[in-house]
Amino acid sequence: MKKLFLSIWIITLSACACAQNKNQMVRLAKIIVDPAQLVQYNAALKLQMETAVKLEPGVLTYYAVADKSDASHITILEIYADEAAYKKHIETPHFKKYKATVQNMVKSLQLVDVDLIGKAVKGN
Amino acid sequence: MKKLFLSIWIITLSACACAQNKNQMVRLAKIIVDPAQLVQYNAALKLQMETAVKLEPGVLTYYAVADKSDASHITILEIYADEAAYKKHIETPHFKKYKATVQNMVKSLQLVDVDLIGKAVKGN
Repeated sequence: MKKLFLSIWIITLSACACAQNKNQMVRLAKIIVDPAQLVQYNAALKLQMETAVKLEPGVLTYYAVADKSDASHITILEIYADEAAYKKHIETPHFKKYKATVQNMVKSLQLVDVDLIGKAVKGN
Repeated sequence: MKKLFLSIWIITLSACACAQNKNQMVRLAKIIVDPAQLVQYNAALKLQMETAVKLEPGVLTYYAVADKSDASHITILEIYADEAAYKKHIETPHFKKYKATVQNMVKSLQLVDVDLIGKAVKGN
């Protein structure tokens, strides 16, 4: 019985190929960071991402990547359950702490609203 | 017992805040598509993504997004287990079929190699 249960879970979670929930808010944040403060910026970013996904039901997904040719050029894929979840997010203590920490590290910030065409993800 | 088992699975899978496996190959593909063929392009892209994640052990993650201001501007986040997995991927029938299908739909393609700074994802 336990084996059957395990198998069902593995099959369910082994791959997700899903379209965007219509209410979801999806965004690319394109950030250029002061190279001299990159280590501190990345630490603050990771702490913010991890805390938000852990504590906030409406913060669903963050992937943060840095260009190999210039690690100070960062792109973040952000997915929130809906716009209300995002508005709640930017009022949280952890987000405000992140913004205060990085205010003198970020040289430019471009926020690009996007729609999720699709995703396909192997099980965690 | 079954309840305990379920709880453990949910806790394990409820959030992932992980850094990049050092061997992983991570990339942003920035694509501009002929607007007149966007529906067909998106269908071909989704089929390719879903097939690759389902069939190939080394194809881990795809997120494809389109700018809200211009849906023909597409960004794809791609994660492969390693470079060998990527090289194997581009030789598969489903990838070759995708490339053949979209060859006259894609106006420009920019591949940006990146490093994963971090990700934080709610359970599927």
